[in-house]
Amino acid sequence: MYNTINFDKLKEECGIIGIYAPGIDNISQLAYFGLHSLQHRGQESAGIAANKNGEIHYYKEMGLVQEVFSDQIIERLQGDIAIGHVRYSTTGESYVANAQPLVVHHKGGAIALAHNGNLVNANEIREALEDQGVIFQTSIDSEVIANMIARHHKLGIENAIKETMDQIRGSYALAITYKDKLIGVRDPHGLRPLCIGKIDGGYVLSSESCAFNVIGAEFVRDVEPGEIVIIENYKIKSIRYAENMKRALCSFEFVYFARPDSVLDGQSVYVSRRNAGKMLAKEHPVEADLVIAVPDSGTVAAIGYAQESKIPFGEGLIKNRYVGRTFIQPDQRMRERSVRLKLNVLKDNIKGKRLIMVDDSIVRGTTSKQIVDLLKSAGAKEVHVRVCSPPVKYSCYFGIDTPTRKNLVGAVHSVEEIRKMIGADSLGYLSIEGLIKSTSMEGCSLCTACFSGDYPMEVPKQGNKYLFEKR
Amino acid sequence: MYNTINFDKLKEECGIIGIYAPGIDNISQLAYFGLHSLQHRGQESAGIAANKNGEIHYYKEMGLVQEVFSDQIIERLQGDIAIGHVRYSTTGESYVANAQPLVVHHKGGAIALAHNGNLVNANEIREALEDQGVIFQTSIDSEVIANMIARHHKLGIENAIKETMDQIRGSYALAITYKDKLIGVRDPHGLRPLCIGKIDGGYVLSSESCAFNVIGAEFVRDVEPGEIVIIENYKIKSIRYAENMKRALCSFEFVYFARPDSVLDGQSVYVSRRNAGKMLAKEHPVEADLVIAVPDSGTVAAIGYAQESKIPFGEGLIKNRYVGRTFIQPDQRMRERSVRLKLNVLKDNIKGKRLIMVDDSIVRGTTSKQIVDLLKSAGAKEVHVRVCSPPVKYSCYFGIDTPTRKNLVGAVHSVEEIRKMIGADSLGYLSIEGLIKSTSMEGCSLCTACFSGDYPMEVPKQGNKYLFEKR
Amino acid sequence: MYNTINFDKLKEECGIIGIYAPGIDNISQLAYFGLHSLQHRGQESAGIAANKNGEIHYYKEMGLVQEVFSDQIIERLQGDIAIGHVRYSTTGESYVANAQPLVVHHKGGAIALAHNGNLVNANEIREALEDQGVIFQTSIDSEVIANMIARHHKLGIENAIKETMDQIRGSYALAITYKDKLIGVRDPHGLRPLCIGKIDGGYVLSSESCAFNVIGAEFVRDVEPGEIVIIENYKIKSIRYAENMKRALCSFEFVYFARPDSVLDGQSVYVSRRNAGKMLAKEHPVEADLVIAVPDSGTVAAIGYAQESKIPFGEGLIKNRYVGRTFIQPDQRMRERSVRLKLNVLKDNIKGKRLIMVDDSIVRGTTSKQIVDLLKSAGAKEVHVRVCSPPVKYSCYFGIDTPTRKNLVGAVHSVEEIRKMIGADSLGYLSIEGLIKSTSMEGCSLCTACFSGDYPMEVPKQGNKYLFEKR
Amino acid sequence: MYNTINFDKLKEECGIIGIYAPGIDNISQLAYFGLHSLQHRGQESAGIAANKNGEIHYYKEMGLVQEVFSDQIIERLQGDIAIGHVRYSTTGESYVANAQPLVVHHKGGAIALAHNGNLVNANEIREALEDQGVIFQTSIDSEVIANMIARHHKLGIENAIKETMDQIRGSYALAITYKDKLIGVRDPHGLRPLCIGKIDGGYVLSSESCAFNVIGAEFVRDVEPGEIVIIENYKIKSIRYAENMKRALCSFEFVYFARPDSVLDGQSVYVSRRNAGKMLAKEHPVEADLVIAVPDSGTVAAIGYAQESKIPFGEGLIKNRYVGRTFIQPDQRMRERSVRLKLNVLKDNIKGKRLIMVDDSIVRGTTSKQIVDLLKSAGAKEVHVRVCSPPVKYSCYFGIDTPTRKNLVGAVHSVEEIRKMIGADSLGYLSIEGLIKSTSMEGCSLCTACFSGDYPMEVPKQGNKYLFEKR
Repeated sequence: MYNTINFDKLKEECGIIGIYAPGIDNISQLAYFGLHSLQHRGQESAGIAANKNGEIHYYKEMGLVQEVFSDQIIERLQGDIAIGHVRYSTTGESYVANAQPLVVHHKGGAIALAHNGNLVNANEIREALEDQGVIFQTSIDSEVIANMIARHHKLGIENAIKETMDQIRGSYALAITYKDKLIGVRDPHGLRPLCIGKIDGGYVLSSESCAFNVIGAEFVRDVEPGEIVIIENYKIKSIRYAENMKRALCSFEFVYFARPDSVLDGQSVYVSRRNAGKMLAKEHPVEADLVIAVPDSGTVAAIGYAQESKIPFGEGLIKNRYVGRTFIQPDQRMRERSVRLKLNVLKDNIKGKRLIMVDDSIVRGTTSKQIVDLLKSAGAKEVHVRVCSPPVKYSCYFGIDTPTRKNLVGAVHSVEEIRKMIGADSLGYLSIEGLIKSTSMEGCSLCTACFSGDYPMEVPKQGNKYLFEKR
Repeated sequence: MYNTINFDKLKEECGIIGIYAPGIDNISQLAYFGLHSLQHRGQESAGIAANKNGEIHYYKEMGLVQEVFSDQIIERLQGDIAIGHVRYSTTGESYVANAQPLVVHHKGGAIALAHNGNLVNANEIREALEDQGVIFQTSIDSEVIANMIARHHKLGIENAIKETMDQIRGSYALAITYKDKLIGVRDPHGLRPLCIGKIDGGYVLSSESCAFNVIGAEFVRDVEPGEIVIIENYKIKSIRYAENMKRALCSFEFVYFARPDSVLDGQSVYVSRRNAGKMLAKEHPVEADLVIAVPDSGTVAAIGYAQESKIPFGEGLIKNRYVGRTFIQPDQRMRERSVRLKLNVLKDNIKGKRLIMVDDSIVRGTTSKQIVDLLKSAGAKEVHVRVCSPPVKYSCYFGIDTPTRKNLVGAVHSVEEIRKMIGADSLGYLSIEGLIKSTSMEGCSLCTACFSGDYPMEVPKQGNKYLFEKR
Repeated sequence: MYNTINFDKLKEECGIIGIYAPGIDNISQLAYFGLHSLQHRGQESAGIAANKNGEIHYYKEMGLVQEVFSDQIIERLQGDIAIGHVRYSTTGESYVANAQPLVVHHKGGAIALAHNGNLVNANEIREALEDQGVIFQTSIDSEVIANMIARHHKLGIENAIKETMDQIRGSYALAITYKDKLIGVRDPHGLRPLCIGKIDGGYVLSSESCAFNVIGAEFVRDVEPGEIVIIENYKIKSIRYAENMKRALCSFEFVYFARPDSVLDGQSVYVSRRNAGKMLAKEHPVEADLVIAVPDSGTVAAIGYAQESKIPFGEGLIKNRYVGRTFIQPDQRMRERSVRLKLNVLKDNIKGKRLIMVDDSIVRGTTSKQIVDLLKSAGAKEVHVRVCSPPVKYSCYFGIDTPTRKNLVGAVHSVEEIRKMIGADSLGYLSIEGLIKSTSMEGCSLCTACFSGDYPMEVPKQGNKYLFEKR
Repeated sequence: MYNTINFDKLKEECGIIGIYAPGIDNISQLAYFGLHSLQHRGQESAGIAANKNGEIHYYKEMGLVQEVFSDQIIERLQGDIAIGHVRYSTTGESYVANAQPLVVHHKGGAIALAHNGNLVNANEIREALEDQGVIFQTSIDSEVIANMIARHHKLGIENAIKETMDQIRGSYALAITYKDKLIGVRDPHGLRPLCIGKIDGGYVLSSESCAFNVIGAEFVRDVEPGEIVIIENYKIKSIRYAENMKRALCSFEFVYFARPDSVLDGQSVYVSRRNAGKMLAKEHPVEADLVIAVPDSGTVAAIGYAQESKIPFGEGLIKNRYVGRTFIQPDQRMRERSVRLKLNVLKDNIKGKRLIMVDDSIVRGTTSKQIVDLLKSAGAKEVHVRVCSPPVKYSCYFGIDTPTRKNLVGAVHSVEEIRKMIGADSLGYLSIEGLIKSTSMEGCSLCTACFSGDYPMEVPKQGNKYLFEKR
């Protein structure tokens, strides 16, 4: 029904939030506003589960946070603890059955889970469970995790979770609520972000710190890789179930996913993007008259590029802020210029100029050509494309929706070939080292597998990636 | 959101349909039209699951069959086998999670179940399963059944189902699809109806035979109590897993639930209702001028009463055929005459007359008084209430939504007390024997537990009835 | 989007209601429930306009009364006077612009009109107005009437209405509200019904008396043909603007349109239908075993036929009460048996029997054949069709949607030809005299033009009928 | 139902589009995409009317363009000429009756109008028409205009429009279609913009040139103040009905309304905004570390300020791009920080810095304080507010929704008072002269009445402004 004008970007799979605030009377409203500020992490479905004395009510539906929830629904979701989830938008069929949080009843009572990430051994575990007669009603990893926890229910919830975490492999940031507890977990490599905030009389867990401001929370710290945090009795308890693993926060969080006003593992996303722009200017200088951005995601880096290169920053492309999800299916004629629905050129600004056009990433390479064409036909003398990340060459197994390798333009073509394809006068990608440096983190703290193929753990053979999805 | 004008009736819990017709190109449309003719068995939610080479797609949602499905959705549900389900409308909160068919993945692949009935030992089984670490995502018995089947997957589907049926107790008519099979099961007492029809190149399973006509099927036979029928390769195979149990088809199917144009276990519902009216005339004769019905459910019996008593049948009450589910919340003033939204008196017909008002049953006794008042204030000289079933005194544990005993007027008041309460000049209930006789079945073939307390099997202690629902 | 299973019936064009009850706090809720009981007169759109001190707020939308209104909307429609309207369902395109009540602002202030009927000189008036520079935004007669009233605004509202009524010709029952007045008007022939009821502290105008019971009103009297009633200051004032015209209430109101529990111009619809059945038995007797009805509209007459003929009445056809408007588009296979979606045969009741099948009318003749087939293939030995009205031969110009003459089977075929077409063993129509007699009205008090071509006034030439609609 | 987080901005009233392209098969799709790019001019309702051989079909509804239209609706709107309209979003009640285009039938046939602007003598004309018996169904000026044209229909459409334009006063850009013509009109002062584009085989009229790119049109010229353009037979004919009037294009189009990629009366909106920023830097220089914008509307000017002042431009505030119209009603706690739902501070960027915060305008002054607070509490050392327009002191009568004067902070407080209220360290507004200079137009070509009170024509006395709306 929906027909989105998709730009050439990778897709984050989820955002999660958890709120512990016994006695507050609008906990689901807080969860709602928190989720709303994580909307960029997933536009397919949204859900909130509210826990009142161990009884859990929930609501989840396809759509944006503001479409899914109404005052009436929020009003019904009373409780002392709430968790919420947003899921990304696929172009294909998607089911409400796969929306989260997942709420299940196990021996100990109701339990709700929200998961951001992807398990690489979910398939093996699921098969083993099925051998034992377990049934599955969704194709999400959370159901595997819930089953594992239930299997270990006799150990008590904390040990059951610890035991489960020992067995699953992959990327995960989890928010779980059970009885009087809100629990957060982050995988041993810290591939997905998760941080802790404090509000009046309680705590918040969130994929990104940008959710804190809107709900009046203050940043406390990140959940550490391999850490389980258990919030109950107004206190945080920490369990470390994995130590000394290589930290590997997803570098694409800095490149594109995270909101610029978030701070991930101590590093401002905005600052890292500006740094990346500066680094790019050093790595790929070029003589030009104006630095412009592909809005909105390339803007911060473009400002950095301009600062470093001393070439003035200006706007060359205007984004239509009303481009949403529900378009009339454009006919061929319209489709050919679909990029124009979203972007328009400022002719007066670019006419006769040599432009540096800064974009955050190139995945399939499908829209870059359209934008370069747009600029050239509006009178740009030269268009030098600068990309704030290295060429994407490898599939991600940790929660990012990457195309198959043959559709990754960086995997099958050289930089020069890509330059020709998109019609740019020059093309420069940020190096992996440059990207790492821009985050001010040491090299070992970022996962750069989609650029380098250097995965932080063993991954399934190509082709098996979405085995669950295809069942 | 919805506010139904509820009449004083018991509520059936479900209707199911299954269609096996490989090669047909509109199997879900057939399922749709079949479900549509079973709509009276459940108005809360509707669902269809279509099986194509073992892959199952489904759609289920709150609402009437015609509200839930669109051409677009039906078009997507392609397959060789389809099962469908309608669920009854509660006044309280209801969740799409509890809609059926239930579709799960187990070791052998996808399996879809549709269930009409209620298990009396679901609770014990569920607890035992939970002990072993099983999780539950709904509060419907079907999930217990699906888990049991999955536990036994190594036996093969037929034996897994047989094994499961040996362990569950209660009422159930099931339609299951898995790989190239459509499977029907009916509990050992035959509490819920299920019959088999034949269509061009295939077979149909349906709760009631009234679904056959609309989809062009011919009645073949009823599924026998304790029988599993497996339809594959265009053939029906029968497995008997329970023999020599007392047959106990729910007598309320004849009194109220089933459509009059259905034939259940060989007995026309219409004929049995007319017979009941005749029997009632014999048991509770009274001098009067006119026999009228409380439409629509009392009409057939009223005609029978008139035939037997030789008192003319006429219409005294007109039903507004547009009374639906979505009313404006009436204020107190409107609520007091809510019965008038549905029924209107034909003053000219009843003025000054002695009336025999035939109703099918009295459960709480809440609307009878309103109707008698309506008739009297319109000028009826006498109103003699005749009820085509015995007083409802006991809760049902087999799939019918009965109020708690203290709300069953027949359980806490004598007939004379009830007569006074509703303001009737006389009140006569059909006897249990009369009801049985009206169906032309031998006494042992009907469950009359809601009238007699004589349950066909051990039932849980009062209070535990909806334990699952309340989790 | 909607695909209705249309039975072979004429279509009423509208129902109207007006409520005057200053000080009451739920006037629009009363209008809602009143409209709801007039739903049978129109299912296309519904609207309510509420007048508070001369300011008028309204809401109208496509759909059934219960679909169009919510508590929220009703709550917003506060006032001392309210008028409401339901419009019939066409199969083609229909516009909310044509929904009523029509609310306009004229020199004197806001005025709202609801109209049931059809003007035969609307076209001439409209053209004359357009010559003078008037614009039209709808294709409904009400807009012509509103313009006429506005033209005469200097005369004061009462004289402006009187002047307008002198100029328009055709059928009309009008409910108008303006400032502190509720005004009802009925055309000089009384073609469309309109009656007055009394409620606590106020008055009600309604197309049919069946609306009174549900809102707690008592019948006072009919508005007389050629009468304007002005309700203000809790009093009714009457103006007669036309006297001594031939009364001509639409006879199809008795045959099919009106609800059986309504009383029109002093005559019970139920009684007239039963009488028609009796008369039919006298005019077209036949030896048979059972009298059955085509439900629901033939039921009352069938009971009358049975009473007169002494042949027992029984049910042979069961109607699916969930047949609504929103069907999946049936494919050819389903379409051929579309009548089965609505009707099912009670085989046990009719097998081997000679049946008298009573229907209220035959218009195109399209479904009669299907029903006769259904009965015969279920084992009926003979099917004698008896129709409680004469053959429909002429178009109506007074508010009823009749097909073009070539599609009226009674206009182009003899009774014997029709009998053969529908496969009946015999076919008998009620005579015009019989129909008139059944209503206990003198001949001059009914319009029988659709049967006789004897119109109560000059009508436009064939082909011009829907000139406005086609603009 | 909707609850928008309103920022402190003036509201444009409408955007219009007209497309003339006989033979094209997707004219309404073009209109759709054109309207979509004018969405910023009105978010309340959207409508398209398609003219096929003089017959006009239309669809209009409350909501955004992408919410109102579906493929199905667009498909139905076939024709050779189409006009479209978007209307602004009020916080109060709004009616679909007031949506545009307005489609009426007059003597000559159907005519559709879309209007951007506001007539100052609509009230007098309307009263005069009402005296003559004319009725009104909406409260929009377009209905007055349509009536005027119809009054003069005997003159032929061109002269009728000319005659009408001679009588109405105020601001208006009109797109009209009738028979085989698309007609554009712009008021004698040119208060509202309207321009002409060319597409394959046809022409386009649009409020702003930004709509051309997306539909593949090329800019031809602006419609001149006091000009009627008649497009038929693939040609443009021009009629000048008013000459030598003072040009007075609304200056707020440059300040805030128009999209930066539009060119109005020859002047790029982007360039004029950047110039305004530069001018502001000259008029109100201050020592500081960083120039930031209130996004998105202040961004261009901030870049200009930075360029002129040589103080670096950076981002200090991040906008949540998912802030839409459908919020949960925030409770008091949330409301107090409602600005945080839309804006978040980049702490790392601004901590300890002296900031210049550039905004486009201050109307009520309600959000400025919140933003300054936000920045200060995030660590900004100083916040110097710079506003790219003069203080808004007077109501607009030409189509802009201005608050009453007592709510215009600039009308009731001095600059210094405002500075204190919003907590800024300094506050500077652009001068009227500076604003005019920034547009590179001569002074006489802009309306600056909202700043100066110097209206280009006589305006109604305060209080009468929305007389029509309040009927």
